Amino acid sequence: MSEFFVVKTVEDALDLLKSEIQISKQIERISTYNALGRVIARAPLSPSDLPTFVRSTMDGYAVRAADTFGASQSLPAYLNVKHTIHIGTTPNFTLLAGEAAEIHTGAMLPPGADAVVMVERTQKISDCEIEVLSPVAPGENLVQIGEDIQQGQPILLIGHRVRPQDIGGLLAVGITHIDVMMPPKVAILSSGNELVPPDKTPAVAQIRDINAYILAAMFQQIGAKTHVLGIAHDTIESLETMAKSGLDQADMLVMSAGSSVSAHDLTRQVINNLGKPGVLQHGLAVKPGKPTIIACCDGKPVIGLPGNPVSAVLVARWIVLPIIHYLLGERARPIGTIRATLKQNIASTTGRLDAVPVKLIQSEQQVFAEPVLGKSNLIYRLVNADGIITVGLNQSGLKTGEQVEVVLI
Amino acid sequence: MSEFFVVKTVEDALDLLKSEIQISKQIERISTYNALGRVIARAPLSPSDLPTFVRSTMDGYAVRAADTFGASQSLPAYLNVKHTIHIGTTPNFTLLAGEAAEIHTGAMLPPGADAVVMVERTQKISDCEIEVLSPVAPGENLVQIGEDIQQGQPILLIGHRVRPQDIGGLLAVGITHIDVMMPPKVAILSSGNELVPPDKTPAVAQIRDINAYILAAMFQQIGAKTHVLGIAHDTIESLETMAKSGLDQADMLVMSAGSSVSAHDLTRQVINNLGKPGVLQHGLAVKPGKPTIIACCDGKPVIGLPGNPVSAVLVARWIVLPIIHYLLGERARPIGTIRATLKQNIASTTGRLDAVPVKLIQSEQQVFAEPVLGKSNLIYRLVNADGIITVGLNQSGLKTGEQVEVVLI
Repeated sequence: MSEFFVVKTVEDALDLLKSEIQISKQIERISTYNALGRVIARAPLSPSDLPTFVRSTMDGYAVRAADTFGASQSLPAYLNVKHTIHIGTTPNFTLLAGEAAEIHTGAMLPPGADAVVMVERTQKISDCEIEVLSPVAPGENLVQIGEDIQQGQPILLIGHRVRPQDIGGLLAVGITHIDVMMPPKVAILSSGNELVPPDKTPAVAQIRDINAYILAAMFQQIGAKTHVLGIAHDTIESLETMAKSGLDQADMLVMSAGSSVSAHDLTRQVINNLGKPGVLQHGLAVKPGKPTIIACCDGKPVIGLPGNPVSAVLVARWIVLPIIHYLLGERARPIGTIRATLKQNIASTTGRLDAVPVKLIQSEQQVFAEPVLGKSNLIYRLVNADGIITVGLNQSGLKTGEQVEVVLI
Repeated sequence: MSEFFVVKTVEDALDLLKSEIQISKQIERISTYNALGRVIARAPLSPSDLPTFVRSTMDGYAVRAADTFGASQSLPAYLNVKHTIHIGTTPNFTLLAGEAAEIHTGAMLPPGADAVVMVERTQKISDCEIEVLSPVAPGENLVQIGEDIQQGQPILLIGHRVRPQDIGGLLAVGITHIDVMMPPKVAILSSGNELVPPDKTPAVAQIRDINAYILAAMFQQIGAKTHVLGIAHDTIESLETMAKSGLDQADMLVMSAGSSVSAHDLTRQVINNLGKPGVLQHGLAVKPGKPTIIACCDGKPVIGLPGNPVSAVLVARWIVLPIIHYLLGERARPIGTIRATLKQNIASTTGRLDAVPVKLIQSEQQVFAEPVLGKSNLIYRLVNADGIITVGLNQSGLKTGEQVEVVLI
């Protein structure tokens, strides 16, 4: 009986696994327009200042600030308007003392000018003269050269996942191609004599394989490529053949084995045949998902997930997703949560991490989190849940009425 | 001067716009395997019970519970073991009183059995006899027929966005195709005589158009199809021709106009020519983004965003994303936030919604949110931000040290 193993915390298991992983990171050059969600592999530097010219941020008049000093409603400054600056064009004159030039938001300041007076602070006297009713300081109402970003500054750091505004930042300085990490390839293998593919009708005593497809969607969501290998029989030969060919073409293998002790034993044996060092750890200090297998075979991570779908999904969140982020060289990003009031006691044990699916219930005053109870082989526990709460290693449970942080799933 | 308009709250503007939108929702049938992130258009019902047979959740022995009543360590129940049930196969016998059958996790219970004793609670005496060391209740350690989901039950509701576990729930009952909403098509038009496409080198006084691509990425992220129309000149003819042809082929038009008053006036004029009723509202009670235009042209929403990228992005979050969700018929979902301590006072005015980009700074004890200051035409304010905080309509600002909720962007 191998159920009685020494468990490791998720953190320790991940550290152990990372220390064994040896995968050379693959980089590809892609169009910035298609870079949403990709992870930066080489930090782009700004090839130029942005903006490259001094721009007005207001509709009004380009002036020499000194000409407006002391101006007021009762004692305005009088300026001659000789020019209008059109947006997108280069002013072909120099603004002299005592002059103002009509300017629109976004237009370029003429040489000689060092500030813009908002149109609301002026009064037109004639086509060629205005009153300025309040002073402006040099630099007021304009964007200086390089104020957005300066030439040579790094735009995005290595390991950063590209967001919509980052695409804008890159394109603003003309970076239309960037180097990003190739998506890691994750092979997913299901095993179990009771499994049939979802498009087949199971005979009595059989069920459809769903874990592979849930996992594939989870991994794709964070930028991995997935290869669903299909269903292996519960024999060394079948499992090993499929696992080997899957791992050969991938950077990582995730096996969703059965939940019986014999299925675990079989998975462990097969993993040890896939490469060195093989199984690093069998058993995590988590619930559900204790019999998880953490392995590394010739540098590639191999994870044996429990067969129950709820356990498989929750352990994949704890173990597989962090490893995919690691393979992507991605910087850690915080995860937003919903704060809710727990509707029901949750029992746990110290020294173990628990994940509990919950439903969010919005009342007038507050949001409640209600545990979705049931066995961990019931996938509808997750379908009916809005999120999960985690009971930490040092907590012996959570009490009704406590504030909890719900991670949406 | 049309800057001095009567503003509406975001909520009122959205209500007004929704009351004018008339777009017939388009539905398409897709493979469940590819349904991640799509929005359910017809609620699938479970075609069968899940599971369809009684399954063991433990490795152990299928028994008649009554045979174990009163069993204890010192006075065990003795049962004859005649059969082993293999996973995936139908037991071809009926379990009689006084009998136990070896069973694995996930295997089918034989007729006659009504509970499973965990192997850890038994002692093997011989190949055909065990001691049961504690009693089990009927139904213990098994999953009943339909315990996961019952035939005829709705699996996912209309308007639900498909998550990984939902794919599992659908496939578990053999639903390999589902009806989802077609992605709404959003046309995006930039205008401004100073703009050039990002792959062109701007002349002095020109800048690259970036808003269109930031917006496209934002809209794609939540499931819209986007069509970047290009850059119109600041003339009625150019704008109207491009806007018309864009809106003809889309469900919605988003215009990113210049920020000058004349650009707004032009946009408003063009929108009024696109269809009835045209401009519904010019001016939102927000900062940045006050001069936003909300319109509906012959049933299709048209939004005139400010030209400054920061304003365009923030207003798009307030106005365009909710309208895309609305066109998708999507149910509202909560958004997770990071709770942080504000590092710096933020001034605001009651009656106005403010969005402030912030950087998150993790100290040992807590997370700080530090406002990323700067003008709203500086895209790097958003590139350098991790999220945004919102100062509500009824708040006159936020104070250093206050707890704020940061929405990641």
